[in-house]
This record gives sequence, structure tokens and C-alpha cells, in this order.
Amino acid sequence: MKRTLGTCYYPEHWSTDIWESDATRMAEAGLTWVRIGEFSWSRLEPTPGQLCWNWLDQAIEVLGSRGLKVVLGTPTATPPRWMAERHPDMFAVNQFGQKRGFGSRRHYCFSHEGYFAESQRITRLMAERYGANPHVAAWQTDNEYGCHDTVISYSDAAGRAFQSWLRTAFDDDIEALNAAWGNVFWSMEYRDFTEIGLPNLTVTEPNPAHVLAFKRFSSDQVIAFNRAQVEIIKEHSAAPISHNFMGRVTDFDHFKLGADLEISTWDSYPLGFLEDRAGASAAEQRAFSQQGDPDFQALHHDLYRAVGRGRWWVMEQQPGPVNWAPYNPSPLPGMVRLWTWEAFAHGAEAVCYFRWRQAPFAQEQMHAGMVRPDHKDAPAIIEARQVAEELRDAPDLQPSQAPVAILFDYDADWAWSTQPHGAGLSYFGLILDHYKALRRLGVTIDILPAETRDFSGYRLILAPGLMHMPQDLKQALSESDAEILVGPRSGARDAHFNIPTSPLPPDLPGLDVTVARVESLRPDLPRPLAGGGAVMHYVEELEGSAVPLLQTDSGAAVAVRDGSMTYCGAWLDPVGMDRLLKVLGQAAGLEMRDLPVGVRTRRTATEEFWFNHNATPVETEVGLLPAAGVLRRPR
Amino acid sequence: MKRTLGTCYYPEHWSTDIWESDATRMAEAGLTWVRIGEFSWSRLEPTPGQLCWNWLDQAIEVLGSRGLKVVLGTPTATPPRWMAERHPDMFAVNQFGQKRGFGSRRHYCFSHEGYFAESQRITRLMAERYGANPHVAAWQTDNEYGCHDTVISYSDAAGRAFQSWLRTAFDDDIEALNAAWGNVFWSMEYRDFTEIGLPNLTVTEPNPAHVLAFKRFSSDQVIAFNRAQVEIIKEHSAAPISHNFMGRVTDFDHFKLGADLEISTWDSYPLGFLEDRAGASAAEQRAFSQQGDPDFQALHHDLYRAVGRGRWWVMEQQPGPVNWAPYNPSPLPGMVRLWTWEAFAHGAEAVCYFRWRQAPFAQEQMHAGMVRPDHKDAPAIIEARQVAEELRDAPDLQPSQAPVAILFDYDADWAWSTQPHGAGLSYFGLILDHYKALRRLGVTIDILPAETRDFSGYRLILAPGLMHMPQDLKQALSESDAEILVGPRSGARDAHFNIPTSPLPPDLPGLDVTVARVESLRPDLPRPLAGGGAVMHYVEELEGSAVPLLQTDSGAAVAVRDGSMTYCGAWLDPVGMDRLLKVLGQAAGLEMRDLPVGVRTRRTATEEFWFNHNATPVETEVGLLPAAGVLRRPR
Amino acid sequence: MKRTLGTCYYPEHWSTDIWESDATRMAEAGLTWVRIGEFSWSRLEPTPGQLCWNWLDQAIEVLGSRGLKVVLGTPTATPPRWMAERHPDMFAVNQFGQKRGFGSRRHYCFSHEGYFAESQRITRLMAERYGANPHVAAWQTDNEYGCHDTVISYSDAAGRAFQSWLRTAFDDDIEALNAAWGNVFWSMEYRDFTEIGLPNLTVTEPNPAHVLAFKRFSSDQVIAFNRAQVEIIKEHSAAPISHNFMGRVTDFDHFKLGADLEISTWDSYPLGFLEDRAGASAAEQRAFSQQGDPDFQALHHDLYRAVGRGRWWVMEQQPGPVNWAPYNPSPLPGMVRLWTWEAFAHGAEAVCYFRWRQAPFAQEQMHAGMVRPDHKDAPAIIEARQVAEELRDAPDLQPSQAPVAILFDYDADWAWSTQPHGAGLSYFGLILDHYKALRRLGVTIDILPAETRDFSGYRLILAPGLMHMPQDLKQALSESDAEILVGPRSGARDAHFNIPTSPLPPDLPGLDVTVARVESLRPDLPRPLAGGGAVMHYVEELEGSAVPLLQTDSGAAVAVRDGSMTYCGAWLDPVGMDRLLKVLGQAAGLEMRDLPVGVRTRRTATEEFWFNHNATPVETEVGLLPAAGVLRRPR
Repeated sequence: MKRTLGTCYYPEHWSTDIWESDATRMAEAGLTWVRIGEFSWSRLEPTPGQLCWNWLDQAIEVLGSRGLKVVLGTPTATPPRWMAERHPDMFAVNQFGQKRGFGSRRHYCFSHEGYFAESQRITRLMAERYGANPHVAAWQTDNEYGCHDTVISYSDAAGRAFQSWLRTAFDDDIEALNAAWGNVFWSMEYRDFTEIGLPNLTVTEPNPAHVLAFKRFSSDQVIAFNRAQVEIIKEHSAAPISHNFMGRVTDFDHFKLGADLEISTWDSYPLGFLEDRAGASAAEQRAFSQQGDPDFQALHHDLYRAVGRGRWWVMEQQPGPVNWAPYNPSPLPGMVRLWTWEAFAHGAEAVCYFRWRQAPFAQEQMHAGMVRPDHKDAPAIIEARQVAEELRDAPDLQPSQAPVAILFDYDADWAWSTQPHGAGLSYFGLILDHYKALRRLGVTIDILPAETRDFSGYRLILAPGLMHMPQDLKQALSESDAEILVGPRSGARDAHFNIPTSPLPPDLPGLDVTVARVESLRPDLPRPLAGGGAVMHYVEELEGSAVPLLQTDSGAAVAVRDGSMTYCGAWLDPVGMDRLLKVLGQAAGLEMRDLPVGVRTRRTATEEFWFNHNATPVETEVGLLPAAGVLRRPR
Repeated sequence: MKRTLGTCYYPEHWSTDIWESDATRMAEAGLTWVRIGEFSWSRLEPTPGQLCWNWLDQAIEVLGSRGLKVVLGTPTATPPRWMAERHPDMFAVNQFGQKRGFGSRRHYCFSHEGYFAESQRITRLMAERYGANPHVAAWQTDNEYGCHDTVISYSDAAGRAFQSWLRTAFDDDIEALNAAWGNVFWSMEYRDFTEIGLPNLTVTEPNPAHVLAFKRFSSDQVIAFNRAQVEIIKEHSAAPISHNFMGRVTDFDHFKLGADLEISTWDSYPLGFLEDRAGASAAEQRAFSQQGDPDFQALHHDLYRAVGRGRWWVMEQQPGPVNWAPYNPSPLPGMVRLWTWEAFAHGAEAVCYFRWRQAPFAQEQMHAGMVRPDHKDAPAIIEARQVAEELRDAPDLQPSQAPVAILFDYDADWAWSTQPHGAGLSYFGLILDHYKALRRLGVTIDILPAETRDFSGYRLILAPGLMHMPQDLKQALSESDAEILVGPRSGARDAHFNIPTSPLPPDLPGLDVTVARVESLRPDLPRPLAGGGAVMHYVEELEGSAVPLLQTDSGAAVAVRDGSMTYCGAWLDPVGMDRLLKVLGQAAGLEMRDLPVGVRTRRTATEEFWFNHNATPVETEVGLLPAAGVLRRPR
Repeated sequence: MKRTLGTCYYPEHWSTDIWESDATRMAEAGLTWVRIGEFSWSRLEPTPGQLCWNWLDQAIEVLGSRGLKVVLGTPTATPPRWMAERHPDMFAVNQFGQKRGFGSRRHYCFSHEGYFAESQRITRLMAERYGANPHVAAWQTDNEYGCHDTVISYSDAAGRAFQSWLRTAFDDDIEALNAAWGNVFWSMEYRDFTEIGLPNLTVTEPNPAHVLAFKRFSSDQVIAFNRAQVEIIKEHSAAPISHNFMGRVTDFDHFKLGADLEISTWDSYPLGFLEDRAGASAAEQRAFSQQGDPDFQALHHDLYRAVGRGRWWVMEQQPGPVNWAPYNPSPLPGMVRLWTWEAFAHGAEAVCYFRWRQAPFAQEQMHAGMVRPDHKDAPAIIEARQVAEELRDAPDLQPSQAPVAILFDYDADWAWSTQPHGAGLSYFGLILDHYKALRRLGVTIDILPAETRDFSGYRLILAPGLMHMPQDLKQALSESDAEILVGPRSGARDAHFNIPTSPLPPDLPGLDVTVARVESLRPDLPRPLAGGGAVMHYVEELEGSAVPLLQTDSGAAVAVRDGSMTYCGAWLDPVGMDRLLKVLGQAAGLEMRDLPVGVRTRRTATEEFWFNHNATPVETEVGLLPAAGVLRRPR
């Protein structure tokens, strides 16, 4: 498949005079795709019921006539002001009970039935009009579900819908819910589903089972909202449907939502994420301030490739400084090209830069584009042109199954955040630490959903932190041919957030190990491992006859093994994690190597890519990599 | 008196099948007491008015038949969900005006008359049924008053009750209130008590007199709530009544509440408190991460011995990792035994471990118990058995009056927190610093309420920080035979939080010293003392003819003395405080010694206990103390 | 003009018995002015409509008869409790939608029409009674507008008034507003002014144009409120009218408000400001803990001299420890005198100490006065007497136009805070950094409003950070005889907070430079300058043919110049800023010198003052300056 480039464009922001020259410049730069429409509701329907299609008709025509393909977005992330009058209670409510206001975006509550219907109405109108348009080659539903902490809403609408959801989940049996949640504790028992409230503003923490159920419900509301749009579009269009996911947003189950889409896409802002979300140390933030975390994007590439069942894009690629991070430096020269190639190396079908032209007004006026507000080229378009040129002669970039897989489970993330046990601990952070360790060792990785049962072809599978681990997953893992690493906290809870008791976790087939006790540790109190490295943050006391692979310097077993099944009862520091993974890698017959800091590799079916995320050239086994450099070689 | 052990048990959490074996195991472990019932309202009265006593009858019978004595708790800390429908406005309201919700515990407002009556009703029903039960050997009212910041409520009910309380306090004379509070300042004068609001959500700080009055009122509401239960129980039962207090909760006057009880108890969680409440430095937190602060528990033992007028227990003793601190490590092996013996050395009648079995569900599922969720022994029961064994042959542990006393005053803590003058300063912290200094010097200490007037038998009395110091207390101190240390801030305010002016504070009999001016200092700007040590945080400029004991290196008097009365006008660092206390100790003829870090002693009537809170053995004058070790020797 | 001293007095706080002796002591101490009345509404009108003038008549008479001149304050900063019953919705509302309560001060919303009328009513009553009183020699409106974050209110009243204000500003043309704000972005378009809400509680950031307009509106509400009082007073009195501004409060346009006053005054609390507002590093806070920032007060002196068009006072001068900072140390001996002389050196007509006697009650009981609560002299009165003595023989202290000017623009501060681009960046901080650099170089400075167009007489003019820079200001600067320094961010936005695009900023006459791109930097990632110093926080990429004055060590132009116009596209560190200013100073023919740390100078028409803000003596070119010392010498 030919890999392609694109951009995000807002014709409604600009005079129609320049649409043609914009389209011509896009085509000349080598772009294929243009996403439009996703914030334009107030222009499509300035007054309820009065639709204005002309401008959009024309914009699609102008773009299409230059050979560009349109990704058309439904505009439901930004309901216009008049919607608030039709549905005064449509707003999301924050944890303090405060109604969130009009004047930015994503102000709707997913559970509001009136707005749900409005979202279907505008989607139907768009699909009817553009479903057969030859230039509309793909769709996008809404925009960045979950951005700005918008999945969870404590509105009355959410309260009613949650009761209903629970009634269904527990077959209308309130005693079943009371039992499953342990509501006898602190006299929290309900007599009817209508008594159940939302888990905010309690005096001390609410029941974790209550919290986890509310997170699951809230995720389902997003999925239902999206599915309603997808179903309507499909009635009118054969073009693939996508949604643009975010970095490190785990508040809804992307696998479940992605199952309704043809293409999974995500919005990649490496510099903003470094400051905000990647959990990098201050030293790492300084070292990669203008490059971004060397693994954070790659992890999401692999994750969204799984969400899209192979089909995925970068829908928004950072092209220069953004406006929203605490500090907003420029990317180093070459980084826009590097990010683009890295996405392709991980199998992206397309990379679209956000946005075409920097808007000189409103919230994002300091967000760079490919083109400056004065219409001149910004640095991004120059690097994009280079990639377009390089793509022309590139061999096919077909990904192949990786030798190593990491299981990723949104539900596990909700469980960890419900009871992290130690301040600041998160499932996402645990996965990122494992992913980084594998990347330091030069390994190409697949992410798999925790629903996977067929693991054929993998030689090493990591399933850390899966708080709830169904028995058939344990079975499938233990029966696979791969080396398996589970723990810490794997299988630590049942489906309703109770500790399994007979036996205690992890209850793994063929591995005699029991978690007798659990500790969380101060960040400044790591426990040294015998032989190097340390346990950090979280550690379990392990019982059983399985053979220790790692022990603390006082002799406590930390990781134990039997056959191809390994259980690690701790959060390891990088040295410890590298030690453990090298043992497993060797057992799995994997090739591993210690890559220089900031250098990363990725294999496709036919090639090996090398990426240098450093601001200086680095000498490697394949030669000198220039700063922000990309090197391709046959496998 | 024989010292005893016990545990906290929730029969309603477990199948009746295992009650008998649980009871048998408790008895075999050497336990005497079992506290039950305090969160069970939804099981006692699943629907308003329909009482279900059977299960509780049976539980008491099973326990009693194994020789265990029951402490029966009233379940008023966790009103069931249906209560919220009967009294929709029963919830406490936080400082931001937000109603606290159902779904955890302690959600009631002490001032709500409807809930007050419900609390009396359920207490009466329990007392009627179990008042004469031979196995019910003690009672507990409610649970942990004040936990989760629940004393203060800004509800409408609190507003009305506060007006009423003020009307009584000021004899219905609003001008008296205006004058006492200085309401002429900023035109805050009221024309009637009905105009007085609660001191939250003001633009800048409210009148401190207003705040302090609201704290006193809020404390009185807790006391009235408790007293109502006590009076009802007493009508039906001769068993002693207790309540389980908290660590470092000072929001109500425990002395005043304790006066209505036979036994004062408290809930001791050394590891959780170290992280959360003891104010330890990061280095101390690392050093004592698995042992807890070496003085924090002892201070509370001495405090609650005073609150109970000699009769006190540990009602909940941490048995392993807890679930609620920022980080939750395991206690070092031996610490559960050490904590138990330390409580006995301070005069505890009983130490009960919380809880019998770790619950695998709901909020506290990560809170260790004596028994694991899989019914196996947890480490705590093994150490408890050892203590039970050791107790069998132990001599009587009768406490004797200590040579040194510290006055403790809840009202002073409210006054300090109303106007700390320097960020982070607290009366509790000042008392803890004095207590720690005395403990470093190997001294056995009594805590006394500030209402004490008979000081006979004491050789050194510390009364730092008593913001309001009645004249007869000053007189009683100056007439005692002991060395007296007062200040800083002692006598700095009158009863309504005004600065006394004729003369200025401290106005002590026989000591010519006046506080001319007051400064608070940046934590990183201590002022060195001549001869070693420093003034920290807070310092007064002293005038008068009293003889300086300590001076800053620029010659300003810091502590001054005349006869046996010493006034210290500063918060001293540990070196300075040790210097001052050694001078006073020598004058008082006290034996003092410099104990190794983490080693502490305590004398009973016949013995001296040595406790090593360190993770390593320590050489002392009485020999080598093992890590987490306890040593007993005759006095 | 003779410079004078004064104090702030609250006769209503004290028994009438001591008024005479207080007045006599004031006069004997050499004071001229006494400000009274500004918080006394509940005493002037205890019940609505029942006025009590007697006490105030008498107080004025007692003071006047001792030769003291009265500054009479309107009491509108503290409406009494009964006002809340007449106007239950008069309260300001915070950003979370919470109504701010009664019980402190400044609780009114500027937009509330009912309270606005009440404010006019009480002002009229006071003006009628005292307008012709011979002892009332000046007036003060209200007290400290903006203190405690009270300019911005999210009340319903503010919402309605804001809609009205916008309707006027946009000539009733909602499409003009939509276009000016770029509301097409995110479908934020309005159909009518009644649809526009307040910019709080939005999901993510609101439109910056919306925010900036709301800040401008809120400023205008303060100005209208003040103007109404001024107009009423003027009908009845010829005495000059003042208001006491704050330090670092920029929430309303002080120039605009000051235009309605005869005298600008401000309240100077150097030690409190050091902790709270001056942005000093921890090391600077330690070094100047008892002296205050060496430049913060001077900057405000110069600023308020401009606001008062030459006529300005210090209305409240810190006399000792205050009560409201995180830490509240005493001033070093001599600092009260130094602060007083510094104000005079900057042209103050009068310096009044706040307050006469420390009040032993209510919120400010720990705020020092000139006299202690026990009526004895506090240190401040002794230093004030010394200044009074020194003033007696002092030559006239007429200020003269400074050679250097800094433009200051409140609107620019609002624009920066609306989109700081980097965490913590502020216009005020940028101005303070430039001001400090000039002071380190021994330069005497004028502050000018950004409305200035006549720059004659200045040799160097700094106009950094003026986000919106009208074309005629650019023209006037470029045509002046002075060296001009503009940037960073100067001219970066148009009047409605859009980026100008044809051309891009800064678009300066005669200087070919364009800001191609903007970055904000982590505080721990400065970019070194070739030749010393560094760029911090914020840096622009400059294009164009202007000659570089400063470059980064990788060769990027940072400051560029053509003729007398210099543009600096970065926030420079102190070394870099000193380098730049020395180049410009030399070009301007200015005398500059490197002053020792903490030593500052200021020239009047005839003299040069030297101030040593250090706690130790410092050797200088004019001799040894004692700690906290002041030296005057002829120019």
C-alpha cells in the first residue's frame, strides 16, 4: 500500500478567494488527504433547521478538483450556541457538581438524550448530502472523544443513564449488585437501582466497585454515541469511517469503539505530550524538549494499529510549536520528517499535519501550521515535501507481525486509577515503562487487546498490570508457545473489583506463586535487587515453589518462573527491567541489543528503520546517525 | 490490672458458616475483646422501622460462647441510603458550599436535628436489646468522630444552630458579641443574631473571632451528639462506654467529650500517620517508613490516657499495610509487637487489632488484617500470639504519675489554626516538637488538660502555645513546686481572640516579660542562638527584667527566667530545645540522658521499657537492642 | 513643595477618651495627614437611613484642632450586613460560580446597579456634610479597588452588564463581534448579544478575545464606580480626591481611573510583597526578607507618579510586621525611614503610615502600627519622627523628568495573562525585569502610559511586551529623538487579540524585522547568547535585514537594530539584559554604572539619593553606606 500525507483544513476560516490556491499548494506539496468540517456546525446550521451547504459543497469541489481526497468530519464536538437553548441541561457536569459552560468545545454530556438525537440528526443530514460525493473518501466522527476530561460527566442525565445501565448489567437484581460491590461494608446497600447515585462529592473515597462501574458505563456512553453516527453514515456512504483518538487518553475503551470504525487515527503532538503526559523526568524533558519522548509516539502507533485492526493513520501531526503545553518550543529541524517516517515505519497508512494554515484568531492562534498566517511556508511544509519526495521511491512499507507483544487493557487502567495503591501509580505508566525497556533493547513490538486469545507467532508476550485477568486468558497465555511475563497486579481483582480469595492472585496455570501481601513504596525508597537494579513504587510478597529469577538483596523473590511462565511481583526500575527482559528474550530466542540513549529501531516486513531522537549525531552499529536522523536499511 | 488483646470483627461481612471457627481462632490467639456492629445499620434496619436483630444476636452468642467479650458499636457513622430520603438535608456541606454525598461514610451533619433523633432512635433500640446481654462488656459510640474532616459543616442546619449557640453564649446581647469580636472593624457589626452567617466563602479572611467561635460551636455539636447516645445507653447498660478517637484530629475537644465516657480509645496507624500527619521530614520518613514516627503514637497514648482519666485502649492497631496513605509499606517484622508493648507501657488496658480478616471487597480491601482473605494467618496474628504469650507471665503494668507534664488544649489548636501567623505553623506541631525533645532526653511524660489546676507531684511542666491562658491557670502554675515553661504565644489572646493590652502578653505572675512584637520567619531563615541551636518559624521580641536563658547571636533574649518560671518567646529547633529543656530538667532535679536516634524509653510504676524503632540493632546503655526490639527491666 | 507625613486612623475603634491624646501625639511626631472613615459605614449608618454623624464630626474636630489635615474616605469597600438584605444579589461571584459571602470586605460586585446606587447615596451624604469642612483637606474613594481579586465577578449582574457593554462596543452588530473574535473557530458564533455568557467554567480555555473583552469590561466597571463617587464629591468639595491603589494589582486600568482623581496614592508593604508578589527567587527572599525587594516599591512609585500625572502619595506605608504574608518578619531597623525617603526621592508628596495604633481585635490584629496596642511607641513612630526632623531642613524635593522611560500598559498585562504562552509568564514580570536592569545600572526612570505620544526630553524609551501597539504609537516612537527598545511580543496582537498578518508583527516603521515563529522555553532550558547571558522563557525567530545586536550561540538573531529603533525578540536573563541596555545607553549618551547588589540610586531635580537595601554596610563610589542606609548628595 502506498503511504500518503495530508492536512487538516478549515475552509470556513478563510475567504473563498484563497481556497483554490490553498488546494493547489496542498497538491503541489504532495498531500493526498484533507480533513474538513469537524468544527463547522455553526456555519452548516446557523439557526436551528436552516442548513447552509453551499460553502461546504464548494470547498469539497475545490479540493476534489485538485485531486485531493476529503475526510469529512461530523461537527458534533462543537454544538452551536443555540443548542444550549434547546437543551439547557445538555452540558457535562464536573466532579464538583459544576455545569461546564459554552464557549470552548466538547461541552456536551454523552448521556444527554436530546443532544444524542441532535448529533444523529446533523450526522444524517451530512451523510445524506455527502455520502455519495466522489471526493469524500473517508469520514471522521466527532473530534477527539475524551479530550479535556470529557468522558466522565456527573450530570443528572448521566445519573439516570447509569442507573439504567446498572439495572441491565445486574439483570434488575439489586441484591446481586450489593453482593458484587460488597455494599454491606459501611452500610452502603441499596434497595433499588434508583437509589444509586454518582460517585462524586462523597466524604471519603466511594466504593471502588462503584467507581469502576461508573467508568465502564461512561466508556459505553461514548461508544454508543459514536456507534449511532457510524450507523447513520454507513446507510449513505461506502467510504471508511474513522475517529481521531488522543495520546494517553484512556477514559473509554478504544478497542471497543474502534471495532465500529474502519480506520483508527490519532493526534500526535510529541512536544506537548512530553511536558504534559509522558511522565518524563526533568532531565529527560530537557534532553528531548524539542524532539519529544522517544517512545511515547511509537507506543501509540502500535496501540492504535491494534485498535484499527491494522488500519491506522496519524490524523493530526504536530508541525511546529503548539499553544497548549506549559512550554511550547519548536521542534528541532528534521523532527517533523522523523515523526512522519516513524509513523510509516509503524504501519500508518497516512500522516496528516494539523493544520494547514495557522489561524491568527481564537484559541489556537499560537498553534503552528504548515503555512504561516501570512501565507508563507512554515518549516513543516518543507519537511513534508521532503517526505513526499522520499515516499515516491520508497518500497512498500507493509508491517509484519512483531516477535513481541504487550497486552493493553483499558479496563485495567480504570482499575489502577480507581485504587492505585501508591500515589501517582498508573497502568499506563507501567505499560510505558515496559514498552520503553523493550525499545531500549531494539525490539519491534505489537500491542494486543486483552481480549486476544490467539497468540500464535509471538515469542514473548508481556501482560503486566492486568488487574482483572479472565481465566481463559490465563489459559491461552500458558498454552501459547511464547515466553510469558505477567504481574505485578495481574489478576489481582475479579470483574467487580474484589480480591479473589480462593486462591489469592495471581492463580496462574502451571505457576505456583501466590501474592501474600502488597506494599507501595515511597519514590525515594527503592529496594535494591541482588545483582543490580531495584524495585520501585510497588512490590508484592510472593509465596510458592516457583523458581526466583530476581530477588531483593534481602532475598525476597521478586520475579519467579516455571517453564515459559514468569510472574513479576514488582514495578522494576530500568536496570531491573532490562535484566528481566534479557533473560526472557534469551529464552525466547530474541535478538536484543543495547541501543544508545534516544536511538530507536523498528522493523517492517522488509526493512529496519533507525531513528535518532537526539539533538546531536550518534554513532551506532549501523553508522553515524545525524541529529533527528532517519536511516532505512533492508532487514 | 491484666492487659488484654482484641480485634475488630464484621460478622455481617462473612458467611455465618465461619463465625464459629473465627471465634475459636480469636480465642486461641489469646484475644479477649471483639468490637462489632459499628457500620452495620443497613443490616440492622434494612428498611426504616424493620429491625433485623437475629444475625447480631447470633454473632454475639457465637463470640461470647468462646469466652470473648464484645464491644458493641452504635452504627451511626454510616446511616443507610434510605436515611437520605427521609432527611434530604442531613448531609454535611463543605467550605465551598457543596453538599457531601452518600456512598462512603460520616456523611451526616452533626447539627441536623432529624438525623440527631435518628441516631438516638437506633441507639435506644440497640441499648434496649443488648444492654443486659452478658457478652456485651463495653460499648462504642459511633466511629472516629471527625475523621475525613467531618466536624465542620457549612450546612443550613449548622448555620441555624450556630446562631442559637451564639445567642446563648452572649446572653442574647448582640452588642456584646459585636464588642467581643471587634466587629466595628470593616463594618462587620450585626443587628441581630439571625444576621450571623458561617465564616466560609468570604472575599478575604473572616474575623478570627468568628472563626474561632464557629470551631468551638462545631466541637460542642459533636459532644452533644455523643452525649445523647451515652445517656441512652446508660439507661440500659452498666457496661463501660467508649469512643475510638483518631490521630492528630483536634477539631473537637476530646477532653470534653471524653468526660462523658468511661474509656477513651484511639485508632493507631503508625505507618499511615508517618506519611500523612506526623510532619516528619523526608529523611525521617525514609528512616522510619516501616516503623512509623518514634513519638507520634506515644504522644497520643499519653493524650488519650488523660482524656480517659487513666482508662484507655488502642481500639484499632495497624496490623500490616493500610490502604489509605500515599504509600503503604509493610511494618518491619516485630513492629506490631513493639507497638502493642508500647501501648501497654503507656498504660493501655487493651490493644485491639484492626481488623480480624482483610475484606476482599469495598473501600478497605487493601487494608491488612490479622488473617488474610484466604483465611491464612497474616503476620500480625503471629506477633499478637507472641504478645499474648508474653502477657501471661508479665507483672502488672500499672502506670505511675510521670515527673514531667505537658498541657494540651484543643482550644489552643483552634486558635493557632485560625491565625497561624506563619504558613504551616500549628499548635499540635509545637506540642509534638516539645514532646519529641523530652523523649530524646529519656523522660516519661504525662499529658494534662489545660483545665488542670492541681499540679502536685510534677517536677517540670510545659505549657507552650496556650493562646488563651486563664489567670487562675497562670496562678496555679506559678504556685506549683515544678519548673514551669510557657511560651511562645502563651496568653497571647483573650477568650474571644483579642490581644490583651493592659498589659501585653504573657502577663505571668512573678515574671517581668512582655511580648513587644512578633515575627514569623521563612523556614529557610532560622536565627542562630548564641551557644548553638536556632530559632525557627516564629519569634517574639521580649522586654522586661527577667534573666535571659537563651539569646540569639545578636543578643536578643529568646527565653527568660525568674525563679521557677521560664518564658520562651520562640519556636526552637531541636538543638535549642534540648539546651533549654536540659537547663530546666537540671533545675527540676530530673534525670535526663541523650538517647540514640529512634530509641525511646517509658517507665511504668515498676519497670522501664526500651523500644528500638530502628531497622537495625542499636547499642545502648542497657545493652544491644535488636531492630524493632523491646526490652523490659525493673526501674 | 514641602513633603509631609501622615497616618491612617480609626477613631471608631477607640474610646473617645483617647482621641485627643492620639491627635496630640500625631502632631508631636511631625505628622500632617490623618486618613479616616473608609471602613466605618456600619457606624455612620447602623440601620438603613439612620445616619450617625456625631462621632465623625467630633473626630474630625479633634484632629483638625491639633492642626492635622483629614483625608476622608468613602466607606463603600465595606457595606454593612443590612445591605445584604436589601440587595441579596449584590455579592461578587468567583470563577467557580460561588457567591462570595459577607464577613470580610470588598464583597460587592461592581456591576450591581442597586449597590452602585447605595454607593452614590452614602457618598452624597458624606460629601454634603463634610464637603465644606475646613479640616477635610482631601478625599479617598472606597479602598484598594481590586484587592483580594475583586475586579472580576461572574455574577448575573456582571453578565447582563457585559452584554450591554459589548453591544455598545460593537455598535449593536453581532456579526462584527463574531468576526472580530474569530468565533467561527469551534462554532462559537452568536446570533445576538444576549447569547454571550461569561468566560468561566468552560470545558477548555475560552476564546482569548472573549476573555480580554471581559477584562476590559471589568476594568471599565471599576472606573465607572469610582467616577460616580468623584462626581458627587466634586459637587460639594474643592478638596483633592484620591484613591489608594495596590502593589501589582493590574486588573483595572489605573491610568484611566487616575484621570478622574487629583492625587494617585498607593499602599506600600515591601515585606509582604517580597513573599507574595515580587517574584523574587528564594535566595533573594532570604537576602531581602527584612527589607523587601530593592526595586518593587520604586517601580510602583514611578508608576503611580504617572497615574497621578505627577501628584502621588504613599497612603499606607508598612510600619512593622504585617499579618497577611506567608511569613511576617520585622523590617530591619532603619527600613521604615529608608522606605519613606525613597518615596520622597521618587516625588511623593506625602507618606502615611498604616496604621496609627495596632488594633488588638479582628482580622488585622497582627498588623503593626506606629503605636502598640498598649499605647507605647512602636519602632515605626521613632523612625517617622526622625524623618519628620530631617524633612524640616530638607531642600525642595522636586522631581525632574528622567532620561529614561518605560511604557506601561494595563491592557498589555491583560493580554499576556490571557495567553501567556509559557507557564508563569507575565507582562508585569517582564516590565519588572527591565526596570530592575535599569536600576542595576543606576538610571533614574519615568513610567509613561502607553497612550503617550509626546516623548520629548527622553533619551531612551523601553516599550517591551506591548501586545497591542497602535500604529500612531509606533510612529511617535520612531520619530522621537530617543533610542527605542521594543519587543518581545510588542505589536503581536491587534485590538481584538488577533495576530496581524499583513505583515506579521512587529511591523515597525524603519525596522525590517518579522517574527516568523514563537517559542516558550522551560525555565531550566535557557538558550545561551554568544558573548554572555542567555535567552529565557520566551524567544522569537526573527527574519529581516535589520542588524543583529545579540545572537544566540547558534547564530539566531535575538535583538536587531536599525537607526535608533531596536527590537528584542526574547526575554533576556539579567546578564543579557544588562548587555543590551548598555549598548542602548551608550548610543543614547546615558551615564550608566554597575551598582552593588541591593544598592539603588534616584535623582531628583537637585539631588542624588543612594539607598542601601542590604542588611550590611556596602562600600560604594560615594562612600560607605550603612545597612538600611540613605545618603543624599547634590547632583
